[in-house]
Amino acid sequence: MTEAEILDRLNHRVRWPINHPVIHGIGDDCAIYRPRGGTEDLLLTTDLLIEGVHFLTSTHRPGDIGHKTLARGLSDIAAMSGAPRFCLLSLGLPKATTDKWIDNFYSGLLKLAASHGVVLAGGDLSRADQITCDIVCGGSVPRGKALLRSGALRGDEIYVSGALGGSALGLASNKGAAKIRHLRPEPRIALGQYLRQRLHATAAMDLSDGLSLDLARLCEASHTVAGIDRLPLFPGATPEQALHGGEDYELLFTVRPGTRVPTTFRGIPLTRIGNMLAGTIKSLKARVLLAGEPLPALGHDHFRS
Amino acid sequence: MTEAEILDRLNHRVRWPINHPVIHGIGDDCAIYRPRGGTEDLLLTTDLLIEGVHFLTSTHRPGDIGHKTLARGLSDIAAMSGAPRFCLLSLGLPKATTDKWIDNFYSGLLKLAASHGVVLAGGDLSRADQITCDIVCGGSVPRGKALLRSGALRGDEIYVSGALGGSALGLASNKGAAKIRHLRPEPRIALGQYLRQRLHATAAMDLSDGLSLDLARLCEASHTVAGIDRLPLFPGATPEQALHGGEDYELLFTVRPGTRVPTTFRGIPLTRIGNMLAGTIKSLKARVLLAGEPLPALGHDHFRS
Repeated sequence: MTEAEILDRLNHRVRWPINHPVIHGIGDDCAIYRPRGGTEDLLLTTDLLIEGVHFLTSTHRPGDIGHKTLARGLSDIAAMSGAPRFCLLSLGLPKATTDKWIDNFYSGLLKLAASHGVVLAGGDLSRADQITCDIVCGGSVPRGKALLRSGALRGDEIYVSGALGGSALGLASNKGAAKIRHLRPEPRIALGQYLRQRLHATAAMDLSDGLSLDLARLCEASHTVAGIDRLPLFPGATPEQALHGGEDYELLFTVRPGTRVPTTFRGIPLTRIGNMLAGTIKSLKARVLLAGEPLPALGHDHFRS
Repeated sequence: MTEAEILDRLNHRVRWPINHPVIHGIGDDCAIYRPRGGTEDLLLTTDLLIEGVHFLTSTHRPGDIGHKTLARGLSDIAAMSGAPRFCLLSLGLPKATTDKWIDNFYSGLLKLAASHGVVLAGGDLSRADQITCDIVCGGSVPRGKALLRSGALRGDEIYVSGALGGSALGLASNKGAAKIRHLRPEPRIALGQYLRQRLHATAAMDLSDGLSLDLARLCEASHTVAGIDRLPLFPGATPEQALHGGEDYELLFTVRPGTRVPTTFRGIPLTRIGNMLAGTIKSLKARVLLAGEPLPALGHDHFRS
């Protein structure tokens, strides 16, 4: 089974009591928990970062790994327009791990946490053969206001923040600005809240597995078909890296046609890459069209053989 | 560094903004998040279960592993007297894992989840060399009412639920009732709520790393010294297994002296094992005394060499 198949099967198996406080489950960037009697919804997400799968100790210093561990979770909170509040960290470490490595790992994580007012509130520790980091992030959003993947409408304009392909380029080249982008992604927290408060975005998600796959997921959740005709390339990145490369951690979002979207937000470019089409998936034969042609969803799936 | 040393260092490094909604962080069974304007507090915990560290695929069937993964998290919710609501699961799987294994793993987890009204609300999937299961559990408790490790007072009576040493015996013998206890621990959810509502327990925690270590942790959090003189032994278990063996997932709790504690709760024995002493740690030279003698905290610490 691929990741998508496992999740699809799970969605059919989870039993959901009526009036349950979890109002949104598997399939978005975060789950949503609605506290009794409160004014906010709570966003919850978890992300694995494993040695040899997501990073190598030869290229990633411990502080980079700590930063990236948390950045992945915060990016999910940003995607749903939340204000991050806390994290919990489960950490599996091989016997050979030094005290200094542990200290530097936590330094990278805690520095990013402090810059967003995020408290490390708990976690778990264990031995493991590979360095294994699982971050839980929680954030708050005004009740009923979280941005979902499923809200895009026909005719909506599709945007991305920043430039794409930088992380894939950095992974391949291991140098320059692209390397920094790969090692130290910046979660788009303030932008996520701006999308909700000022642009009244209809849908949003973060780009973690590559635009081709992530946009297809957004279209599937929204029952729409996307046509894209433009890509903001990271300097030096190829169109393939921008379309299919993972880990850019930029935001992908949609707005109603005619929405005035500024060209930048706090220095981050916002680029219109296309729009949601009027046709159906049957007539157009794909979830995403690039310059009118079906775009294969070649982004990353851990379990695809 | 041992686990305790890592956590102690972290506690000094976490920056805590004023009026932060996380009102209780590292060092208890769960963190506590207080939603704005609500009537409940949210309990959050995360627990790793790793192949070769916490289990072997030769003795644990996939359904057992799914059950135990969730049971560990639910036990933490029980320890703080919460009603479990949801879980998220991060799962790292080796390439050789079959679809059937995955299905059976989720069956074990989802069956336990459904029996407690817990919704699997999200998670993450990844490749990994070892089967790696990290469960996040969330539960609710009336605002300000969570049972903590830190509430025990001098003179309090100390109790445990169930019988101790069964899991260690099951691990060693791999047979009989002890094996079932080891493979399929039952989180004491209803008991945890009863401790708060009816017994007005002063402190509680779950027994995951062995009584000698866990009771010492409770005493440290409460600034107390415990004297114990009695142990409810699992049939066939040795006093050493009951004192130092991990993974019993029974509840350890304290009540004010004179509290009427029934001998059983829904068939689970409740046994008074001792009380919090009047002396100081300096005069008594230990956190825990067994029949008047200092008891070494030999319970499980992953990072102790």
